[in-house]
Amino acid sequence: MARYTNMEFLRYLLFEIHDVETLFNFEKFSHLDAEQAWMIIESAKLFADQEMFPYFKALDEQPASYDGNGGVKTHPQLKKIIQGAAVQSWIGGAAKFEHGGMQLPEMIFNTGQHIFQAANNSVQGYIGLSTGSADLITSFGNQAQIETYVPPIYEGRWQGTMALTEPQAGSSLSDIITTAKPTENGYYLVKGQKIFISGGEHEAVDNFVHLTLARIEGAPPGVKGISLFIIPKYRPEKDGSLTYNDVYCAGDFQKMGQRGYSTTHLSFGDNDNCRGFLVGEPHKGLSYMFQMMNGARISVGQCAASVAMAAYQASLQYCLERPQGRAASEKDPSKAPTLIINHADVQRMLLTQKSISEGSLSLAMECNKLYDQVHGSTGEEKENYLLLLELLTPIVKTYASEQGSRSAALAIQTLGGYGFTTDFPVQQLYRDLKIMSLYEGTTGIQSLDLLGRKVTMQNGKAVQLLMNSISIDLKASKDFENLAPYANTLDIELKRMAKVLTHLSGFAMKGDLERYLSDATVFMEMAGHIIIAWQWLKMAVVAAQKIKESNFKSNSLAFYQGKIHTMEFFFKYELPHSEACAKTLEDTHTLTNVKTYEMFQ
Amino acid sequence: MARYTNMEFLRYLLFEIHDVETLFNFEKFSHLDAEQAWMIIESAKLFADQEMFPYFKALDEQPASYDGNGGVKTHPQLKKIIQGAAVQSWIGGAAKFEHGGMQLPEMIFNTGQHIFQAANNSVQGYIGLSTGSADLITSFGNQAQIETYVPPIYEGRWQGTMALTEPQAGSSLSDIITTAKPTENGYYLVKGQKIFISGGEHEAVDNFVHLTLARIEGAPPGVKGISLFIIPKYRPEKDGSLTYNDVYCAGDFQKMGQRGYSTTHLSFGDNDNCRGFLVGEPHKGLSYMFQMMNGARISVGQCAASVAMAAYQASLQYCLERPQGRAASEKDPSKAPTLIINHADVQRMLLTQKSISEGSLSLAMECNKLYDQVHGSTGEEKENYLLLLELLTPIVKTYASEQGSRSAALAIQTLGGYGFTTDFPVQQLYRDLKIMSLYEGTTGIQSLDLLGRKVTMQNGKAVQLLMNSISIDLKASKDFENLAPYANTLDIELKRMAKVLTHLSGFAMKGDLERYLSDATVFMEMAGHIIIAWQWLKMAVVAAQKIKESNFKSNSLAFYQGKIHTMEFFFKYELPHSEACAKTLEDTHTLTNVKTYEMFQ
Repeated sequence: MARYTNMEFLRYLLFEIHDVETLFNFEKFSHLDAEQAWMIIESAKLFADQEMFPYFKALDEQPASYDGNGGVKTHPQLKKIIQGAAVQSWIGGAAKFEHGGMQLPEMIFNTGQHIFQAANNSVQGYIGLSTGSADLITSFGNQAQIETYVPPIYEGRWQGTMALTEPQAGSSLSDIITTAKPTENGYYLVKGQKIFISGGEHEAVDNFVHLTLARIEGAPPGVKGISLFIIPKYRPEKDGSLTYNDVYCAGDFQKMGQRGYSTTHLSFGDNDNCRGFLVGEPHKGLSYMFQMMNGARISVGQCAASVAMAAYQASLQYCLERPQGRAASEKDPSKAPTLIINHADVQRMLLTQKSISEGSLSLAMECNKLYDQVHGSTGEEKENYLLLLELLTPIVKTYASEQGSRSAALAIQTLGGYGFTTDFPVQQLYRDLKIMSLYEGTTGIQSLDLLGRKVTMQNGKAVQLLMNSISIDLKASKDFENLAPYANTLDIELKRMAKVLTHLSGFAMKGDLERYLSDATVFMEMAGHIIIAWQWLKMAVVAAQKIKESNFKSNSLAFYQGKIHTMEFFFKYELPHSEACAKTLEDTHTLTNVKTYEMFQ
Repeated sequence: MARYTNMEFLRYLLFEIHDVETLFNFEKFSHLDAEQAWMIIESAKLFADQEMFPYFKALDEQPASYDGNGGVKTHPQLKKIIQGAAVQSWIGGAAKFEHGGMQLPEMIFNTGQHIFQAANNSVQGYIGLSTGSADLITSFGNQAQIETYVPPIYEGRWQGTMALTEPQAGSSLSDIITTAKPTENGYYLVKGQKIFISGGEHEAVDNFVHLTLARIEGAPPGVKGISLFIIPKYRPEKDGSLTYNDVYCAGDFQKMGQRGYSTTHLSFGDNDNCRGFLVGEPHKGLSYMFQMMNGARISVGQCAASVAMAAYQASLQYCLERPQGRAASEKDPSKAPTLIINHADVQRMLLTQKSISEGSLSLAMECNKLYDQVHGSTGEEKENYLLLLELLTPIVKTYASEQGSRSAALAIQTLGGYGFTTDFPVQQLYRDLKIMSLYEGTTGIQSLDLLGRKVTMQNGKAVQLLMNSISIDLKASKDFENLAPYANTLDIELKRMAKVLTHLSGFAMKGDLERYLSDATVFMEMAGHIIIAWQWLKMAVVAAQKIKESNFKSNSLAFYQGKIHTMEFFFKYELPHSEACAKTLEDTHTLTNVKTYEMFQ
């Protein structure tokens, strides 16, 4: 079977780089040990091998598609996957025991999801969305809501979704207009249109639970007047029966990629009989939703890393099997061709992919761990973990999706013309990956979030926490002669980033917020390169330690050498572009405030 | 109708930047004047508007597909397009009068092709391939071959193709094994398999003329034993009838993009009755083929620029129509949303696209002009034009295809989630564009060609000619106070590139060819940024001159201001990455000669 991820790398990430075992000291996770944790992950791999990966192409070729009458046809395997995932607790596994979960750390649970994302990213979408929806209800819903909606979602019988986007508003959530009219019976009557609702309709479940943002009549304008509602497609009655709740799927969107994942247009209350059930307090919907949104952003980043990983594995496998051409110095055409992996340019393309996909997966794992630390600790410690997580969230989302696309393009490139054909998976992965820079806030939105909110919150405390965290790895790497120069380079880049921030802050302090934020995306690009360099240095330190100790119980010498090598590669080939971004950011000439549109023509 | 190119920009490129009128001084083109030339281009636009652009999506949705029995089904519009193009001389228009052409300069002819590429790149493929094939026959075939094959190709009745690639050889042409056995009757019996043959079978023509590389029995190994053959699918008999020539389409490749353009697997001589007709002398096939190949490389580069341009135009149109969000400083959510073009990040995405698509189209036009100059001049002048053209060919091909993909990705990004849906053309353009970095020699192959052959030929004379050519524009720009700093920056970048070349040459001089070439692709990236910066400076000089003279007869003040603005943008946002490439290239640590494959895992 073709490889789509690398179990040795996952073990290395979990146990050697990000020390999942330290989490087992938290009471919440004290029921676990390393062996169990790894068995759970291996069960995910087996399930993905058998039920997901073999259907990767089929779901693209027979895309989810609207049936013209409120339904969306989906591949029959989807039902088997969702049910199988439910049985193995891959929907509710991270939930607390009291909610029917296995109380798994996100690090473990999301390593399983990574395997699914790499195997078949469309189907993982349905699962991940259900997980996030149930989690949101558990966090902010009342007991009755939890009891009604969470179990069927975890059992894979109902699909959870998030319904935010409206046609006229797009990314601008302050402009949503779906209305919720209070009734004497406690529920609200909801009316409105939502688009781009992933998993909003399909054939693999019996019911849908749409977590929907709407405005209660008379609510204040903007984001402060948005409330969160549970809106089931069929509402459960007291006797357990289901009544149609006036939620109609009015169409779908056909897409360039993730074609197995339905993307729907939902119409609420066409017959004025759509009941919405308020979650938590009125007008606080957006803040609740942001819990799910933040989780989804990390998940999208991880998914991008996973898809890039799958593309890398397919690319590597091809390069190890395909003979073609000869070394530049080999003039004798009668000599047998060499494997293409022996060409320098092919190695460059492979190492670029490896450095991006593994680097961003490591960052995703860093975020998963922070999430677990937030939920396992209290007080200031908890707050600090949360600040750091909030800072890294837009970065992992954006780096993995933007650079992941570049990585998948190189996967195509290593296969030559074959890479462009449907005979190989790399082109599908390239198409699938492109959505990741759009989901849950585009790259532009993430960049505004990073520079406009995350960098500035609590007077830059999150950035300071990040620097502290990086310092630990810088210090550790200085113990190794071969790593010290790289630690030094990273240090220079961090100082450069600080200098850029000081420069930009000048605009903010003068009140010129537009100018401060105008190149936020370039700052994001710069930060991404530096943060991934940090992840690589961290990975290299462990590898150097293992080599020093000749400790090859978990992985081979070559495996660890490969990690140091890829770190060096990243610092040589990728990191220099951070300085180019700095140059752009420090250039004071403003070019993105053109008022005369004709200048674009 | 949606815009897919910009006629004002084309007029500016032709008449103001690259001075097409100077070509009319060559005897070959003396029959033309500016007005005529522009009328010809306008006729291309009208034809593309009516017959090509409206079918852009349909050809993707009903892709060319193998019928299981030697045929490839294609959209019915294709026949209308090929015949219409033939009638309007868009297949043979650049050929000499004596061969039935209109003796158009490539600058004019390829501006028409640009319009077709932007309107519907799949169908332009068929046309361009026929043009190149007929041109190859005209250049190296005998009179009988010219008379037999060229007219039906120009009349759109027969399809010309190039048949090089074989399954086992891929990019390594020295390894092709298709055989040609001489017979007493003058023709050869050909046997072999060719894959990835574009336009190799479809329903819009009566016959196919495959320009095929094969080895005559007993030929020397490697590239020195390759000959060029005309192999028609149906061979014309003396009485004008056609006899099946044992050329069988054995299948096709389904692809991620350019789905309207058939990509076939051809089998020659399954029944030992496939006659090939030698073109020119034996064993010189590859050198002949390189005439077509070089033309095709420029054409692919231009096509990539054209597709990026179409994506930019679609993106711009959307940004001018879509209201969403508010300025960062606008806190009142009850204010009406602004057009997204007013957001700085959207302007950044638009200007990146504009700088890449217009910049690379200008470079393609530079190449077209050089081609015309080669064919219009003699002696040393001709040789110099040719050297410069050979140097720029891999650059235009690679810059436009690699950066064009980035540009099209930004087109998707400006549309948000809509960009990923099949409701908008940008996702199709993104998919189509990806093939350009693979066609006619991948980016890796182009980069080896640039650094390994073009830079070194005649002791670097081509590079010297390029520097001379750039100097003229540097000098001109220094007349304008606002351009002088940019001229200075470009000068620094040129010196940086020279320094990098000196550094790399050290390896070549020590005989370490592998090391010299190992980062050729990074050098290519660097060269691309610098060459496009040159094109932008050239465009800015003309704009500055027009503004100085208040000469707005052809284009408006805002148009010219936009050119200077985009130049500034390119220098601020794109060009700094040239220095990052230099840093990588000057780093002496070799990382792409890994012998232990396990290190990739």
